[in-house]
Amino acid sequence: MDKAILGIDLGGTFVKTAILSTDGKLLAKHEEPTQAIDGLDAVLDVICVASQKVISSAGLANSDIAACGIGAPGPLDWRSGIVFTLTNLPGWKDVPLGAIMSDRLGIPCYLENDANAACYGEFWRGAGQGARNMCLLTLGTGLGGGVVVEGALLRGPDGTAGEIGHMIVERNGRPCGCGAQGCLETYGSVTGLVRTAREGLEGGEASALRERCDGDWDKLTGVMVSEAAEAGDAFAHEVIRTTGEWLGLGIANLLNLFNPEKVVLAGGMIKAGETLFQPIRETATRTALDVPAARAEIVPAGLGENAGVIGAAGCAWERFSQG
Amino acid sequence: MDKAILGIDLGGTFVKTAILSTDGKLLAKHEEPTQAIDGLDAVLDVICVASQKVISSAGLANSDIAACGIGAPGPLDWRSGIVFTLTNLPGWKDVPLGAIMSDRLGIPCYLENDANAACYGEFWRGAGQGARNMCLLTLGTGLGGGVVVEGALLRGPDGTAGEIGHMIVERNGRPCGCGAQGCLETYGSVTGLVRTAREGLEGGEASALRERCDGDWDKLTGVMVSEAAEAGDAFAHEVIRTTGEWLGLGIANLLNLFNPEKVVLAGGMIKAGETLFQPIRETATRTALDVPAARAEIVPAGLGENAGVIGAAGCAWERFSQG
Repeated sequence: MDKAILGIDLGGTFVKTAILSTDGKLLAKHEEPTQAIDGLDAVLDVICVASQKVISSAGLANSDIAACGIGAPGPLDWRSGIVFTLTNLPGWKDVPLGAIMSDRLGIPCYLENDANAACYGEFWRGAGQGARNMCLLTLGTGLGGGVVVEGALLRGPDGTAGEIGHMIVERNGRPCGCGAQGCLETYGSVTGLVRTAREGLEGGEASALRERCDGDWDKLTGVMVSEAAEAGDAFAHEVIRTTGEWLGLGIANLLNLFNPEKVVLAGGMIKAGETLFQPIRETATRTALDVPAARAEIVPAGLGENAGVIGAAGCAWERFSQG
Repeated sequence: MDKAILGIDLGGTFVKTAILSTDGKLLAKHEEPTQAIDGLDAVLDVICVASQKVISSAGLANSDIAACGIGAPGPLDWRSGIVFTLTNLPGWKDVPLGAIMSDRLGIPCYLENDANAACYGEFWRGAGQGARNMCLLTLGTGLGGGVVVEGALLRGPDGTAGEIGHMIVERNGRPCGCGAQGCLETYGSVTGLVRTAREGLEGGEASALRERCDGDWDKLTGVMVSEAAEAGDAFAHEVIRTTGEWLGLGIANLLNLFNPEKVVLAGGMIKAGETLFQPIRETATRTALDVPAARAEIVPAGLGENAGVIGAAGCAWERFSQG
């Protein structure tokens, strides 16, 4: 039979694994708690166990797997396969994860930044299918991103390209965790949305959100805002609209810079649906130059939680195929 | 002997031509007034004359030329070789310039956006040499740009990628000719610099610039500001510094998005030297993420007025070589 590919998504809470055919069909998946607190060796064991289990559940042996891709949060060096550190995983310092896993699994392993892996996943098998040029924005606590140019991940010499969340859209804007001000992340992430809501509430805006968080703004969440908007709360609706306008502005910049066929939005926030997508599309189309604005489709992601593990496998297959 | 390449830079005022060896050595160059006012056929004749003259002056015949690249302002379709319109050149509407010139010169001709051609020129033979990933910003009346990713021009499906000047860096900022607000062009071009100066002068700032333009702000030019700064005018110096900070902010975005080895600045404004480059480098380095900030060199262009014609030839050679 044809060989298959193994994808691994190493997160702080779960290690997800999947087996895919070389044309991207998902054959099996599995997940194990990462046990990050137990340190490096324990986590390496978890990765091996999660890999062996998914290989078995697909009815395969390690020798049936052509290549393995590992997505991890990093910072890391995708070329050498070395993880420099991993946020929320103690004991990880300059770990040659690619080499270790290649050795332990007997399969060529390729390391990838997790945001890039998710981007490649959506490009290869998700909402980006059919595009040659695509941008992914993952709207979560932060704003992660990735870019595909002419079918290949945009990485740059250090593998740090595609940091869409740290594109500045307001010179003296909100302070960002990166040290700069006015990054798109500070307005367009869930954290940014909550902050927009909080600023409005502190400024006296009327909203059911006041009761929902008992007047304690620290309790305010993105889900609360989303639910309030759905229930007809005008202020909550306006907060999502404002967030969408900021995102539309950032996406307009991407359209002018990359002229992509598709922009894919992922992450919990996209559950807000048209309330979010309408101002995004409106602002991006009005703001970008006419030709790239007419070209780009702005669409929700298609793979959900599986984007990372599918993309890790896809990246590995691409790199393995190119020798 | 080895074949050579012909580069043509079609501008509103001059048609520039050059002969290059296939490894990018400039063998001959020439220019003719475009005679734009005389209409399409006259300009096509000028292009032919300028081409034949430079071929002759290099001691070559048309059969010695492997490929010809034509840079034009557009909008145009680089793939099909069709020029849709040309600003400042009346009578140009959907002209298959690539096919016409291929036919008239008996040489395969390739059409390219002029900003992209200049970008490729600097990448191939100018200040971008040695880089695999490069951004070019041309600081003139507007702010033109181009991007090279892993050795290839970033074009996108419509050839409109790389519009660095229309990256928004201030949400409700200055109105831009493109219809949006807060584009980098409105702050970082010569026009933006002059506007910054004018706003300061109207606000009552003390400066020798008041006398230089007889109190008529419409007479204010970028050269005036630059000369006043050189002569020690503190306000003029501050205007250049502010312009550099805006450019540094835009470049920080490019570092985070592209992780390039080099950012090349071209156009008349770079004559301001360190007065401009120092705030650019300072702001870009402080604002971008650490790894891409440490990677990128921000340097002045190396080819001056020749970037377009050299780049047009280089693009043609690249496309011809790839079949």
